[in-house]
Amino acid sequence: MLVGLGPGSHDHLTARARAGIAEADTVIGYVTYIRLVADLLEGKEVIKKSMTEELDRAIEALERARQGRKVALISSGDAGVYGMAGPTFEVLFQAGWTPDCGIEVEIIPGASALNTCAALVGAPLTHDFCAISLSDLLTPWPTIARRLDAVAMADFVVALYNPKSGRRTRQILEAQRLFLRHRAPETPVAIVKSAYRPKQRVEFTTLAQMGEADIGMLSTVLIGNSNTFIRHGLMVTPRGYANKYEVTDGERATREGEKAGRSLSTGLNGWLAEIHASGLSAAELARLHKLPEDYLAALLAEGLPAEESPAAQEAEA
Amino acid sequence: MLVGLGPGSHDHLTARARAGIAEADTVIGYVTYIRLVADLLEGKEVIKKSMTEELDRAIEALERARQGRKVALISSGDAGVYGMAGPTFEVLFQAGWTPDCGIEVEIIPGASALNTCAALVGAPLTHDFCAISLSDLLTPWPTIARRLDAVAMADFVVALYNPKSGRRTRQILEAQRLFLRHRAPETPVAIVKSAYRPKQRVEFTTLAQMGEADIGMLSTVLIGNSNTFIRHGLMVTPRGYANKYEVTDGERATREGEKAGRSLSTGLNGWLAEIHASGLSAAELARLHKLPEDYLAALLAEGLPAEESPAAQEAEA
Repeated sequence: MLVGLGPGSHDHLTARARAGIAEADTVIGYVTYIRLVADLLEGKEVIKKSMTEELDRAIEALERARQGRKVALISSGDAGVYGMAGPTFEVLFQAGWTPDCGIEVEIIPGASALNTCAALVGAPLTHDFCAISLSDLLTPWPTIARRLDAVAMADFVVALYNPKSGRRTRQILEAQRLFLRHRAPETPVAIVKSAYRPKQRVEFTTLAQMGEADIGMLSTVLIGNSNTFIRHGLMVTPRGYANKYEVTDGERATREGEKAGRSLSTGLNGWLAEIHASGLSAAELARLHKLPEDYLAALLAEGLPAEESPAAQEAEA
Repeated sequence: MLVGLGPGSHDHLTARARAGIAEADTVIGYVTYIRLVADLLEGKEVIKKSMTEELDRAIEALERARQGRKVALISSGDAGVYGMAGPTFEVLFQAGWTPDCGIEVEIIPGASALNTCAALVGAPLTHDFCAISLSDLLTPWPTIARRLDAVAMADFVVALYNPKSGRRTRQILEAQRLFLRHRAPETPVAIVKSAYRPKQRVEFTTLAQMGEADIGMLSTVLIGNSNTFIRHGLMVTPRGYANKYEVTDGERATREGEKAGRSLSTGLNGWLAEIHASGLSAAELARLHKLPEDYLAALLAEGLPAEESPAAQEAEA
């Protein structure tokens, strides 16, 4: 069993994660994670490994499972998000494991750091978001930099995992530099340390100030998108309701030209109609919308879908 | 309380989510979510709302809280990920709410669809990933298209939320088209419907075939990155251990030129040394690494950090 503990407090353990640990004969994990669930481990074989021994944890788990033991490999957060699920399957496949070889694998999902950190700061992830690890222990820097640049440009909310360590101090500054090419210096940033654990700490700052913030191995950094704001100590990314509705005195009204439950007037079909009617070239539209020119050219060449053509709309009216 | 139910089965409810519902006088949610926890709601006021009435759910919650009732606003997955946390704060702020006005807000995190769907298909999210909603009910299409293009280029694993509905059928085809400009047609794709619920269904396909797959309102689509593979019915994104280690016969060996627990030789510092030694111009390096030319120019202009200069390395040796 690959068990995601969530943030680590028992309150935020799922019933299945707790049962999985209870069923296990052997529990394997990084020392810090073992400590988080220490009181659930009485009478079990406990194998503590250090931070970088992820493959060893997986190898050990397979060995014990082959001896007929039920093994819980624990990860904080979600075992699938920068967790043990990946290394475990890499080791299993290399060892010739197959799903019907007699050793079953169950992944028990949990809330990842981005979910728990978001819950503590407000509602930063209510629109499209990314997770990027700044650790270059297994990933070349140009790959990481390319991802930072792409998502900064495309206005994602971003959660930075492994932002900084004793040795890796410049990566976060490079991330900041790449973001500042696309985002305003006052873009809200939240730094959450040890979420839902005794040493929990939440700090709000801005993209411009992020370099001076207290960021460490146990921190997750959340960078807002261009609409994210901080109010009353809460970081919120609007979902876009203001594009469609107006709320006044507890009443909700739909804006002119928009329909409840339907695509925005600038949604796919409305936008297709708009680019066809614009008279602009693919190159001009590409610049305007920051989209690839060949994509715009293909859309223009295809013409409007029948139900969106002016003739069809007239027939409907 | 904004309660994230996780996938919806009681097994995957956290202790705090269950307690939150138990403490509530009033439970408000979309009809489907209410049904998921129906047996926990005896004796409570239950307010069911339809899909598009998210602002109304938040307005209703605030009204009840003002009457002194303890309210649980439930979301499937995580309340912070395309969930009720965003609309709730939007409504609260508009109504003049502040954290010390006597109405407390607690967000109870849960595993989001991307975590639970990933757990069912293997380990697709073990490297950098994004969540993008294809719903254009509140987001203009060019914004969505720009995000799809950016993350397809930068080789993220991507989870598509709200991929398709009865009315919105073309968005997923446009997403496919934008991805095919950057990714191989055989890129693995998993489609997960109703994860951990009675009607759960997992389908594996490829980017090229994705258009023909059975995708609906309750589906999440996971698109792999360029290293993701499917083996024995499991979708796995390697974490990158193969960049550093070799595992043979249950033994782990570090590759030549790499050090356990240290940045890769192509990590930030190694790469900086490499670009300085290359003799290439910023423009050439930008093309080679698919990074902005001005970023490369700035790095070249700054020179190497002292501890990475050949002189410093010699001194160490």
